[in-house]
Amino acid sequence: MTEKLKRIHLSELHDRVTSAEEAASWIEDGMSLGLSGFTRAGDAKAVPTALVNRAKNGEEFKVNVYTGASLGADIDKILAESGIVDKRLPFQADPVMRKAINTGEHLFIDQHLSHTAELLRAGVLEIDYAIIEGVKITEEGLLIPSTSIGNNLAFVEAAENIIIEINMAQPEQLEGIHDLYSPKPQGEREPIPLTSVEDRIGEIGIPLDLDKVKGIVFTNQLDSPSTILSPDEETQQIADHLLDFLREEIQAGRLTESLRPIQVGIGTVANAVLHGMIDSEFEDLVVYSEVLQDAVFDLMDAGKVSFASACSMTLSEEKMKEVFGNFEKYHDKLVIRPLEISNQPELIRRLGTLSINTALETDIYGNVNSTHVTGTKMMNGIGGSGDFARNARLAIFVTKSVAKGGDISSIVPFVSHVDHTEHDVDVLVTEQGFVDLRGLAPRERVPLIIENCAHPDYREQLWAYYQEALERGGQTPHVLEKAFSWHDNFMKTGTMKQKVKLEVES
Amino acid sequence: MTEKLKRIHLSELHDRVTSAEEAASWIEDGMSLGLSGFTRAGDAKAVPTALVNRAKNGEEFKVNVYTGASLGADIDKILAESGIVDKRLPFQADPVMRKAINTGEHLFIDQHLSHTAELLRAGVLEIDYAIIEGVKITEEGLLIPSTSIGNNLAFVEAAENIIIEINMAQPEQLEGIHDLYSPKPQGEREPIPLTSVEDRIGEIGIPLDLDKVKGIVFTNQLDSPSTILSPDEETQQIADHLLDFLREEIQAGRLTESLRPIQVGIGTVANAVLHGMIDSEFEDLVVYSEVLQDAVFDLMDAGKVSFASACSMTLSEEKMKEVFGNFEKYHDKLVIRPLEISNQPELIRRLGTLSINTALETDIYGNVNSTHVTGTKMMNGIGGSGDFARNARLAIFVTKSVAKGGDISSIVPFVSHVDHTEHDVDVLVTEQGFVDLRGLAPRERVPLIIENCAHPDYREQLWAYYQEALERGGQTPHVLEKAFSWHDNFMKTGTMKQKVKLEVES
Repeated sequence: MTEKLKRIHLSELHDRVTSAEEAASWIEDGMSLGLSGFTRAGDAKAVPTALVNRAKNGEEFKVNVYTGASLGADIDKILAESGIVDKRLPFQADPVMRKAINTGEHLFIDQHLSHTAELLRAGVLEIDYAIIEGVKITEEGLLIPSTSIGNNLAFVEAAENIIIEINMAQPEQLEGIHDLYSPKPQGEREPIPLTSVEDRIGEIGIPLDLDKVKGIVFTNQLDSPSTILSPDEETQQIADHLLDFLREEIQAGRLTESLRPIQVGIGTVANAVLHGMIDSEFEDLVVYSEVLQDAVFDLMDAGKVSFASACSMTLSEEKMKEVFGNFEKYHDKLVIRPLEISNQPELIRRLGTLSINTALETDIYGNVNSTHVTGTKMMNGIGGSGDFARNARLAIFVTKSVAKGGDISSIVPFVSHVDHTEHDVDVLVTEQGFVDLRGLAPRERVPLIIENCAHPDYREQLWAYYQEALERGGQTPHVLEKAFSWHDNFMKTGTMKQKVKLEVES
Repeated sequence: MTEKLKRIHLSELHDRVTSAEEAASWIEDGMSLGLSGFTRAGDAKAVPTALVNRAKNGEEFKVNVYTGASLGADIDKILAESGIVDKRLPFQADPVMRKAINTGEHLFIDQHLSHTAELLRAGVLEIDYAIIEGVKITEEGLLIPSTSIGNNLAFVEAAENIIIEINMAQPEQLEGIHDLYSPKPQGEREPIPLTSVEDRIGEIGIPLDLDKVKGIVFTNQLDSPSTILSPDEETQQIADHLLDFLREEIQAGRLTESLRPIQVGIGTVANAVLHGMIDSEFEDLVVYSEVLQDAVFDLMDAGKVSFASACSMTLSEEKMKEVFGNFEKYHDKLVIRPLEISNQPELIRRLGTLSINTALETDIYGNVNSTHVTGTKMMNGIGGSGDFARNARLAIFVTKSVAKGGDISSIVPFVSHVDHTEHDVDVLVTEQGFVDLRGLAPRERVPLIIENCAHPDYREQLWAYYQEALERGGQTPHVLEKAFSWHDNFMKTGTMKQKVKLEVES
């Protein structure tokens, strides 16, 4: 125990040390929990598990579960299996929970990640227990976070009660990479004083109201490793096209070779794009993102990225060993911020980010669906893509042009759910090519999206739809009764491919 | 001429005075023009008219026309009739131009109003001639704007050439109410130092690069009066419901009686909501909006509004006389800013506005269509509604529950065009009632939207759709092949009313 207690530099807190089971026993039916965790990094691991065990032992209760984003350590899985979740927000990425959401077993709110903290501050959401992972409590009463911050600061500020998980497996060297800043309530709020990706504007830990700290639990478990797949031929082509677009921007004088602060959403395609920059001519890059994946550290090793800011680090097993084993190499090139700061519209607009996010499907006018399979089933959630796309210097969406072995076209007449409107999408990239939509009216966009981005197997079909739509006219021509026929066909026949019949109505 | 020249306090500019015809003759085929004007206020009047006359006299040419928002003085009408427009952005509200857009006679880009200046600064859009109305040029070389600023500062900064219209009919007393501030390029940009609606952060006029000033034209014509209709019974009911919602927020401790800085979109319903506040208990109100309509001045007269900030003033004929005849009463309670500042996400989030905008239709999950009739035909444009709704403390959308004498339901299964997603809509209000969507999952939203907001004539039909959708499951249940059947029915039969048949598929 002595080794562990060394992590709590404030001796008056030593008697709050307790077991996960004891801490979990305090949680009552109907309560709302704010759990640390963002994209599998820095999640509270022991207390949520102990809470689920109460349900396994036959207790009946429900809680609301709020986080920064998706959780690792199978927490979302066991929460969903246990049936104790009433409402979950703002993001998840677990297959078991996904199924529970889509069958309606529990409720899910898909939210812009930057909005959660504001809703807590405004009193729209409330928190009974914040359950937060950290590596240390300082003499000054600061909780040093671990591999993510996410909504932890907002949860701690809003919560009635706080339970801390000190994770002995997370490296203590993380101390010093965090920068905790909390905007004041609206009306009293000053400008957020960050003008450069490297700026530090707050504390190195989360200030604790000691009266709220009900318990401290020790854990010893690394984060779940990232599930990112290696680049394949198509993601490589997407990366190549995207780099070609950036080169054209440099030629036009709208970008320099250090580009803009880069934000890349979580995912395999996005990670491949970053990897594509390693052997490129781009240099002196900086990252202002939500999550730092393997590729960011590879870019640092290659001397391409000089600084990176995010609200979490989500690494593969191998990369975690490498980074934590040589953390002094990275310590001064990193800052981990609250989600509310990493995803803050004010800062994204001020810095002018180059934002790259993944689309599930897009339509011929450039609207993007990031979340709903065939318009109904939740995949993961919108995450921070909307926080960035709306305010980025360049809002880029990437996707493979087809899915399910070619039976689904990612370019459709009308997206079956809209997460990003035509107003917020600058550039689309598929393995077929890219299209720059800026300054183009809807009717100018369609031919370019079809010819540059759609899969050749679907181009004729898309043209047929558009021709029929054009006969009806309008700013955004559509044949509404056929707008979702592609999705309907897929659900009924297993493919979006149809015999093309060019119908012209006058 | 002497009286007129007194408006140009910089004598070296006196020899730039010219006729509208001469100035219009400089404009060449293919050029892009930045015209002053925002919601019928402060538009360049003479030079665009003279330009149209060149086309009437048989000249063939095309230009791109960029503005702050909609124009008065029939400029959009004659531009559309003349056929000289290649591309128009970011907003318009003229019936003749609307028709030309929807038949494809000219192109139109519907843009978040806060984005235009950023696209100019980034070099995505370019301007050959800025044609800008003002009331005076000072000794220091500042152009004092008239009743709007809109994108004028951005146009003047981006333009190769500037033509100024000094409008003798606009009151010179307007001097001093403007506050011109331009953000630096991204990467060099500081926080915008505005923390209160009353703050002044810039110059009283637009700094002119004198070499760019090619001509100065004198005009003498008031703005076209506002076209806002008086409140009717239903808009009064909408206002009443909205005020009830605000009272509940005060009871819940989430608002005080001075509410939040108010933004109200242009339009009859929105204006009625403001009128509804005159006899209310709310007080010490401030306005942070795009456009100040009659009701804001009525609220000032009633002692309810102490200060108002916007980027334009659009008044009825009567109110214009009253306000300009007693301008000393209002001078120190007003500030007119660039559109980029009035609509800036950074400031809207910092101030935490109460934003009220009009929906064309909403769906059962809270997505909002602000722009496209039956998904294809442009009405006016998204305007600033997205700038505000995304970052507001409260994003409220108002609409009557039915249109066309009851044949169109404003609440539909699936909106036929998405301008504001479920992520950005907090509260819906119709004459039937209101629904607070914050903190609600999609399946929780549907019953409340149907019962509180939909017209009774359509509730059964909506329930039938939702029941069938629920059988299919999902986070956001839909019957995609019937999602647009209401719009399709309206187009084919003239009404959205159908015989309800409850189909249950398992």
